[in-house]
Amino acid sequence: MTSLITGGAGCIGSELVGELIREGTKCVVYDNFSSGKHEHLQPLADSPLLRVVEGDVLDLESLISVMHGVDWVWHFAANPDVRYNCGDPTDKDLRQNTLGTYNVLESMRLEGVKNLAFASTSAVYGISATLPIPEHHPLAPISLYGASKAACEALISSFGHLFGFRCRIFRLANIVGGKTRKFGTTVISDFIRKLQQDPHRLHILGNGRQTKSYLHVSDCISAMLFAACGSSEAFAVYNVGPSDSTTVNTIADIVAAEMNLGPVDYSYTGTEGGWPGDVPSFELDVSALDDLGWQAQHTSLEAVTMAVREMLNKTATQ
Amino acid sequence: MTSLITGGAGCIGSELVGELIREGTKCVVYDNFSSGKHEHLQPLADSPLLRVVEGDVLDLESLISVMHGVDWVWHFAANPDVRYNCGDPTDKDLRQNTLGTYNVLESMRLEGVKNLAFASTSAVYGISATLPIPEHHPLAPISLYGASKAACEALISSFGHLFGFRCRIFRLANIVGGKTRKFGTTVISDFIRKLQQDPHRLHILGNGRQTKSYLHVSDCISAMLFAACGSSEAFAVYNVGPSDSTTVNTIADIVAAEMNLGPVDYSYTGTEGGWPGDVPSFELDVSALDDLGWQAQHTSLEAVTMAVREMLNKTATQ
Repeated sequence: MTSLITGGAGCIGSELVGELIREGTKCVVYDNFSSGKHEHLQPLADSPLLRVVEGDVLDLESLISVMHGVDWVWHFAANPDVRYNCGDPTDKDLRQNTLGTYNVLESMRLEGVKNLAFASTSAVYGISATLPIPEHHPLAPISLYGASKAACEALISSFGHLFGFRCRIFRLANIVGGKTRKFGTTVISDFIRKLQQDPHRLHILGNGRQTKSYLHVSDCISAMLFAACGSSEAFAVYNVGPSDSTTVNTIADIVAAEMNLGPVDYSYTGTEGGWPGDVPSFELDVSALDDLGWQAQHTSLEAVTMAVREMLNKTATQ
Repeated sequence: MTSLITGGAGCIGSELVGELIREGTKCVVYDNFSSGKHEHLQPLADSPLLRVVEGDVLDLESLISVMHGVDWVWHFAANPDVRYNCGDPTDKDLRQNTLGTYNVLESMRLEGVKNLAFASTSAVYGISATLPIPEHHPLAPISLYGASKAACEALISSFGHLFGFRCRIFRLANIVGGKTRKFGTTVISDFIRKLQQDPHRLHILGNGRQTKSYLHVSDCISAMLFAACGSSEAFAVYNVGPSDSTTVNTIADIVAAEMNLGPVDYSYTGTEGGWPGDVPSFELDVSALDDLGWQAQHTSLEAVTMAVREMLNKTATQ
């Protein structure tokens, strides 16, 4: 059994690679190391099951060259920065995520690879009046990132049907853990960095009342491995998250407490979302995974607390 | 009031242009004439309200140059051939439809154009267990064409939210009328051509029991004009079709009857759909348009009969 993991040197991808190797699966990591890091794979470097290929999903020829003999593709490679800032190019997500996914699908078709697991995002839903959001909810993304992932899902659906692939689409909540990317920030790393610079004041993007679901990366990997082969359907979509959510203010409190800080003065940009395209509140209906027999081990609060500790420990040991 | 109509020389676009000009709207037709025809615009050629620009939606600079001063964009330009044949490039729809739509959105953003109507397709749904299909049904396209249009919808949703566009998405049933494209066939033009070559025998793609909704192009234009300004929402999606459907066998019967033929011997490829990616049966739930106050004037059967007569009359007068 051989798995190809695009974006396999990323925060989520590298955790999956670790787990697959522990299970005895041969892994080909395909990563351009734009945001992934070699250090994420360092603990696995001695494994004879690991092969690392530096390559870009925008390079179809290169993808074709690594696809031979692969049984499962885990497609995680994507622009990881979900934020759109005024002045950014508007086609970054379309090109890196959607065209990249097309190349993955086309190389699978050409090399006869039949199984695909895809890391999508809860951002495909946009703003929902229904919470928690079930998988059959219409997709109306409000970010270019969410739109590009929704486009990937549509491509995967059609390729799967036309060329007989088995496809699993995982719409991920905010995945948190101890690893950080080369660039871009998450709410946790943003708060830690700011509070390390000034332990008395924290400027929060949004109004602090944004309420989202956070899943620890270990739960994320466990869910995807469980669901990949857990049903016989050719095409299946799963929300992957805990069954609760927490607020940005609570995350700030956790970070401050874990850093053993005194009183911190919070200020806010005051907008409903943290940035243009940010969905201020969401919670995923995870009953599909639940029906399959999988449940998250950690709540949003626990996941955030664990991730804060892991990040702080890492900083302390560096 | 100025409208830009991409694909304005096509079978549907040119009908819209005719109606807009009758209403007194200045129209800029933007078409690369790959499948559109100059003859479709011939009856409007003397109107001072019509400007025709030969250009491709893949050419962003050219799109930007025509966007200045435009109030509404009607985006119809697309690869019109929904069929995928073995050996076709698999990225044709992605490039022509999805990247083309990105360029339309980006040029609107850069030139401050705020209103968009988009011709999507019922093919975004894929195969549905629920008939008729409501707009909130999940999208699981089984054709590359359907996937590319679903991707367009996601892009439109995000651009609309981020940059304050008003967007109308029209998921069209099979639109039929007297006009034909430069290439590609529809079920009606296919049957007419085959029966003109051999009036005794007709080879039918599929099993003949495919059951679909057919809307006359006049109803399609009427629905889109009605719904474009009919609600105050920033983003709205409408199924556009009649509230019934008809079978491919019935269409064959109508064509044979309208051509005054004797008994015709039907044979079948025997597959469930006519081609890979064909959705064998669908009917759209059109209650959203109904609630707005619009209903089709013609049933599927009437629309097909009208289109057959219009095509035969045109052939006779050519």
